[in-house]
Amino acid sequence: MPCYALLIEYDGAPFVGWQRQENGLSVQEVIESAAARLNGGVPPASVAAGRTDAGVHAEGQVAQIEIAADLPPERLREALNFHTRPHPVAVLRAARAPAGWSARFSATMRGYRYRILNRPARPALDRGRVWHVPRPLDAEAMHRAAQALLGRHDFSAYRAAACQARSALRTLDRLEVSRLGEEVVVRAEARSFLHHQVRNMVGTLVEVGLGKRPVSWPRAVLDGRDRARAGPTAPAEGLVLAFVRYAEALDWR
Amino acid sequence: MPCYALLIEYDGAPFVGWQRQENGLSVQEVIESAAARLNGGVPPASVAAGRTDAGVHAEGQVAQIEIAADLPPERLREALNFHTRPHPVAVLRAARAPAGWSARFSATMRGYRYRILNRPARPALDRGRVWHVPRPLDAEAMHRAAQALLGRHDFSAYRAAACQARSALRTLDRLEVSRLGEEVVVRAEARSFLHHQVRNMVGTLVEVGLGKRPVSWPRAVLDGRDRARAGPTAPAEGLVLAFVRYAEALDWR
Repeated sequence: MPCYALLIEYDGAPFVGWQRQENGLSVQEVIESAAARLNGGVPPASVAAGRTDAGVHAEGQVAQIEIAADLPPERLREALNFHTRPHPVAVLRAARAPAGWSARFSATMRGYRYRILNRPARPALDRGRVWHVPRPLDAEAMHRAAQALLGRHDFSAYRAAACQARSALRTLDRLEVSRLGEEVVVRAEARSFLHHQVRNMVGTLVEVGLGKRPVSWPRAVLDGRDRARAGPTAPAEGLVLAFVRYAEALDWR
Repeated sequence: MPCYALLIEYDGAPFVGWQRQENGLSVQEVIESAAARLNGGVPPASVAAGRTDAGVHAEGQVAQIEIAADLPPERLREALNFHTRPHPVAVLRAARAPAGWSARFSATMRGYRYRILNRPARPALDRGRVWHVPRPLDAEAMHRAAQALLGRHDFSAYRAAACQARSALRTLDRLEVSRLGEEVVVRAEARSFLHHQVRNMVGTLVEVGLGKRPVSWPRAVLDGRDRARAGPTAPAEGLVLAFVRYAEALDWR
């Protein structure tokens, strides 16, 4: 059966996350139900690069899906966008997947962006898209603290209790904190992340930004390898899966 | 009674517009109902710089309001933000209004931004915040066409039939079209605009961007002074009132 790659954007608010679950609608179910219309009524199985949690957004999720129909990628994209309505899920591009390619295991880099709205007034326009932190954050201190987390480490202190990865060893390539007016943006890049790793790192950096903890603290937490010592998990709504990179050149349409 | 200036952000989607109307909830009613809690239960009258239509957003609306209580502006801001919940309306700043100042009549410049999402796939993350135009737009041609509308003219061709302004003479100071990746953004600045003027100009420029009309057409429409000759009115959801400028320096808190 032809295998396709899909580049997907979604608003995470109404979903239980990417992955199918008993307790509500998932992005995966929306995509697979739409694809079923092109697959003789049978929902085909899909695999995504990032299993985003409930409330987490994506502007560059990548998934693979096998469909019985042999369609030009642009037709597949249009058909899926028709059948995923009215859900806030859009297939931006589609491509025939190269032989042996996996949306999940072939990914060489994943990029996340975390948006913090840092002003006294709560968000009106970006409600559900940002974490509202009313007290002033020192973004430069957060950035300096973040640099001490780069490289290959055991990230046990920043993983969720429910994390199923065998090893907590990960290589963090980028963790950049910058201020854009009222917004503090954190950009994180790695080949792969542990469950809640980005949100736990952001929650820990915010403690530094608020002046509650010194710049050296997030690294000390890392070295301690104890989740209980890190800051709180930042809320899902500020997080967006920005991009996934592959060694293979995909012919996106 | 003390008069205050308010800098307000709102998501226009759930409202009938800024102005109070019989047929639904307005931003004005949300603000005035919240202010009533500080005014002995009586909703005080407010006046805004821009009477945005249903669905139009604001990140820099300015309103004036008289309240019996003599409050520090930061306290007023916090109290209003508490009582406007859970509506997507936030008071970003508040100030004591200078004597003789009017939110509406003292404004020397109003700035609007119009966002067009120009890609095949419909918006998922920015649903309700952009106009989705799937076919490719020539933003440079739109920009050139826009420059011919600058200056002082009779804008009858671009006003709504329902527009109540006595004169259609307006001075357009800026009408800039630029592309940012998949987005085409139109920025419009003038001391004041006619009803639907920005949306009618955008709708007309999009006809040029799609190649249906020549670059010279929007100016020919202007010179014809006939609304029936212009392009369609662009949808409300792409429009945001970005800022209002005054000669008076307001002490925003």
